[in-house]
Amino acid sequence: MPAYKSPLRDIQFVLRDLLDCDAHYAALQDSNPLSPELVDAIIEGGSRFAEDVAAPIYESGDAEGCQFSGGRVTTPKGFAEAFRAWGEGGWQGLTVPEEEGGQGLPMSLGMCVGEMVGSANWALNMYSGLSGAPVTCLLNGGSPELKARFLPKLLSGEWAGTMCLTEAHCGSDVGLLRTRAADNGDGTWNITGTKIFISGGEQDFTDNIVHAILARTEGAPDGTAGISLFIVPKFWVEESGSLGAFNNVNCGAIEKKMGLKGSATCVMNYDGARGFMLGEENKGLALMFKLMNSARIGTALQGLAMSERAFQGALGYAQERLQMRSLTGPKNPGGPADPIIVHPDVRRMLMTQKAFTEGARAFLYWLAQQADLAARGDEEQAAQATALLELLTPIAKGFCTETSQEVTYLGMQVFGGHGYIAEHGMEQVARDNRISTVYEGTTGIQALDLVGRKVLGSGGELLRGFTRVIHKFCEGHNGNESMAEFIKPLAAANREWGELTMKVGEAAMADTEAVGACSVDYLMFSGYVSYAWIWARVAEVCQEKLAAEPADAAFYRAKLATARFFFQRLLPRAGAHAAAAMASPDTVMALEPEAFAF
Amino acid sequence: MPAYKSPLRDIQFVLRDLLDCDAHYAALQDSNPLSPELVDAIIEGGSRFAEDVAAPIYESGDAEGCQFSGGRVTTPKGFAEAFRAWGEGGWQGLTVPEEEGGQGLPMSLGMCVGEMVGSANWALNMYSGLSGAPVTCLLNGGSPELKARFLPKLLSGEWAGTMCLTEAHCGSDVGLLRTRAADNGDGTWNITGTKIFISGGEQDFTDNIVHAILARTEGAPDGTAGISLFIVPKFWVEESGSLGAFNNVNCGAIEKKMGLKGSATCVMNYDGARGFMLGEENKGLALMFKLMNSARIGTALQGLAMSERAFQGALGYAQERLQMRSLTGPKNPGGPADPIIVHPDVRRMLMTQKAFTEGARAFLYWLAQQADLAARGDEEQAAQATALLELLTPIAKGFCTETSQEVTYLGMQVFGGHGYIAEHGMEQVARDNRISTVYEGTTGIQALDLVGRKVLGSGGELLRGFTRVIHKFCEGHNGNESMAEFIKPLAAANREWGELTMKVGEAAMADTEAVGACSVDYLMFSGYVSYAWIWARVAEVCQEKLAAEPADAAFYRAKLATARFFFQRLLPRAGAHAAAAMASPDTVMALEPEAFAF
Repeated sequence: MPAYKSPLRDIQFVLRDLLDCDAHYAALQDSNPLSPELVDAIIEGGSRFAEDVAAPIYESGDAEGCQFSGGRVTTPKGFAEAFRAWGEGGWQGLTVPEEEGGQGLPMSLGMCVGEMVGSANWALNMYSGLSGAPVTCLLNGGSPELKARFLPKLLSGEWAGTMCLTEAHCGSDVGLLRTRAADNGDGTWNITGTKIFISGGEQDFTDNIVHAILARTEGAPDGTAGISLFIVPKFWVEESGSLGAFNNVNCGAIEKKMGLKGSATCVMNYDGARGFMLGEENKGLALMFKLMNSARIGTALQGLAMSERAFQGALGYAQERLQMRSLTGPKNPGGPADPIIVHPDVRRMLMTQKAFTEGARAFLYWLAQQADLAARGDEEQAAQATALLELLTPIAKGFCTETSQEVTYLGMQVFGGHGYIAEHGMEQVARDNRISTVYEGTTGIQALDLVGRKVLGSGGELLRGFTRVIHKFCEGHNGNESMAEFIKPLAAANREWGELTMKVGEAAMADTEAVGACSVDYLMFSGYVSYAWIWARVAEVCQEKLAAEPADAAFYRAKLATARFFFQRLLPRAGAHAAAAMASPDTVMALEPEAFAF
Repeated sequence: MPAYKSPLRDIQFVLRDLLDCDAHYAALQDSNPLSPELVDAIIEGGSRFAEDVAAPIYESGDAEGCQFSGGRVTTPKGFAEAFRAWGEGGWQGLTVPEEEGGQGLPMSLGMCVGEMVGSANWALNMYSGLSGAPVTCLLNGGSPELKARFLPKLLSGEWAGTMCLTEAHCGSDVGLLRTRAADNGDGTWNITGTKIFISGGEQDFTDNIVHAILARTEGAPDGTAGISLFIVPKFWVEESGSLGAFNNVNCGAIEKKMGLKGSATCVMNYDGARGFMLGEENKGLALMFKLMNSARIGTALQGLAMSERAFQGALGYAQERLQMRSLTGPKNPGGPADPIIVHPDVRRMLMTQKAFTEGARAFLYWLAQQADLAARGDEEQAAQATALLELLTPIAKGFCTETSQEVTYLGMQVFGGHGYIAEHGMEQVARDNRISTVYEGTTGIQALDLVGRKVLGSGGELLRGFTRVIHKFCEGHNGNESMAEFIKPLAAANREWGELTMKVGEAAMADTEAVGACSVDYLMFSGYVSYAWIWARVAEVCQEKLAAEPADAAFYRAKLATARFFFQRLLPRAGAHAAAAMASPDTVMALEPEAFAF
């Protein structure tokens, strides 16, 4: 696999040409004035960290993996140093408000850095990503005293953190959780229970680990209405912030996983571990969900990050590997064969990777700007952005990660047999990426959230908020011949989205199972339409740029060709998903559970 | 993962109800009378080997993997014993003619045994599968003396074998191969060169290993016209069949792979290793291709085998894992939650697995009967069967393996986070299966063979041979209301296949890149139509059976529901592939090679 190279040209295109980030940042309220130079400096710094610190330990991190012995976890060589460098560079608090000790930068800029570092080494990125969990929980539900006690060292990277929801018998169904919290009567609680799948639950590179953990207080109601949120350090933290005694937080084992082997996935035992409640009793899940929404966009980002890595690998190989001649005559007459990039089917694979990867970047960066506006826009902007985020977060999480499976699959496929061999790195990218459609809510869970809660739950209002944006965009190009190849199918798909939703709504009234039966196909349909919209916007920008005959016209022409590929070769899949979504729920519910196999 | 259980009920359905195998076997020429009892005994024996011998070492084989040290390979515990039991049971020569020392059974019965043993442990199955390579090469191109020298111990499993095509610089482009053969003037040749990706090139369980190897004689023409086929044993074999000296066949390394870790994938060095030529000089590739065609069906079988394993795992988990309540009211009121099989989206995943898996079984078993007819039918049958095999082998290889990626993906997805953990086995199934779209010719290579050589190369004749079969089937149900839900979309898809082919043919005349640009989408389209035909045939049989109100009506009703699922929820994807295949070749060829990234 070639060394990771940050896709700075495309990032600049998305941020500047497509999303006009400088005007966007200048208009945010309560924000530091964020100059174009500072934006560039941060991107440049993130890129250096990604290329120079994170990427070099990507493959070795997988080969070494994490080791577990006697309750201790040993992480791969270089991970501890990299995590420390991350903290010392001020990256851990990048998007945390300045008054809380962070850098106060908008989420969209964090996304951009996150993409690069994540592409370079997602396993490493897990430690810093999860360390953000107790930070967000503290910001949303911690008293000033608790924040003062925990935040500084979490932001400096001297301590790390985790998010603890899952138990062996409860994953998607968090209401079943059993971990208990006993009131000590002095403002602290004793937490007892076992959590699984805790990323970074134990490691060997920070003095302390702060766990954000869901548990039930005594006499709490059953189900999700009886869940509270706590913060529990591995070593007790005195009011001064100094470390106290071991707090009965034990790692019982680490999982042997398909991928992300540099990230320690821990079974954690809390044996009366002392902690603090965040927010109100029994309201923990709502607090955790504030975190989950950004975590879901962060997982969508994994889809983008791994896609970029798979695309870079496949492209490099396709340009160098010599097999067979182009049917239109030798392109490398001096060599024994032509590079395989001359072959149309290899192009198809690369174009598919490029269209999904660059589409994901444009869509997610735009969505991150909505998050900026939700947090720091004026009232109207914030309301609109919040509504868009509600609708589009499950689409982003579901669609970006599902399509990234295809992109990382194609990464291996371009390599042929060599893609199956560890030393080329492509199979690692596919293994690392395989979890992205599962954690932070499976695609099925995202789809239920989308169709049940967001679309039908709002009586269609949240969806109309977005289809109106698309409609307005299409209207604006009425009669514009040069954009017609994009606008016509986009407008048609947008109309079909509305019609499909009507049908789904009707079906849901007639049959309780209709929502679940159609939901994933509905989500995938929605993703194709959303990407069609962002690709049409990209095409619009490129046509404007090309009209001025710029020096880098080749870049914009390539973008336009990629937009065309998306519309002609990928968007037709939306129709297959619509057809499946409109099929009777009986297609999936007809069989008795015992009639699936005989 | 639950223990593997051979899907005997479905195998019986396909062989007996759908394909009337007893009449088929009775009508084969030159065949032993194959009684229904003998067919059952062989299936039963294969099932026992799969369940009792192969399956128990599936997960341990992956965990232990193969080890390499000092030129020697150590295979996982139990593999040697299992291979020996396979040979001693007479399985290695199952489909080899009796006069050559085999059991003389038809290929279709070998397919059935292969599915079960492959589902149970594909890595183990690799050793016996590749041992068949020199056997087939000897049968097709070996003198009576050579056959007498090598076949007995290859068929008894005392020796094993390999197939050696690939070199580091030549995979798909076999014409580039450099391994040399020097004539010793005594009927033997000295082979010198390095081959890679040699499955079972070295192991620790047979006295000898016989390599079928492609090489160039001195002065041979460049490219594929100068390739000859040789047979080269690790230890020299005297005319008597007894073992001689070490023959300079060395294993240089084994690959660290994503999956199939129990199968040793070797770098093999031949340092003047002595061997025999099979067939004529410079005609080796044609001889090897006779083998490749059955190897491609064998790899399609891997798609089926791994799909079955993933389906069994997911189904078992879905019936046991308790998460959330059914929206139509608790189905497991005594428990804390309902089994996840109550949820429509879990059903969608299971139905998708079931439709692809059982569709693959029906289609491949039918195709295997065509192979029987090609070998042992009367002249007319043989000609028709051969033509069908020509057309459908690349479709079977490409489509069964590509869709099996989705099935093994869903196997993990049903397990949620637990699917990513090694101990549940589902990630192993996905890793093991990932190579199936690559080896024996990637999907791209299959698609070029299909569109370029088979469909357009025959002026459409090979395709018409199959679409006529479909058309006749549809005609036969004219006015049959109960079959209309299957016949109408099948007839439409069949017509569309013809129209798509016309367009592809026209495009190919206008643009040299058109075939490559459309080929994989054309193959996937063809696969969906082929499966629609086999599912319609299944539906026909089930309706006939149900009319008689059989005791096991539930089985046939489940099949019918699965056919409906395929038609309503999977077949619509054919339209997306047709649209992509009809897009201009410019969609993939527009970019200069250097314009894929900036």
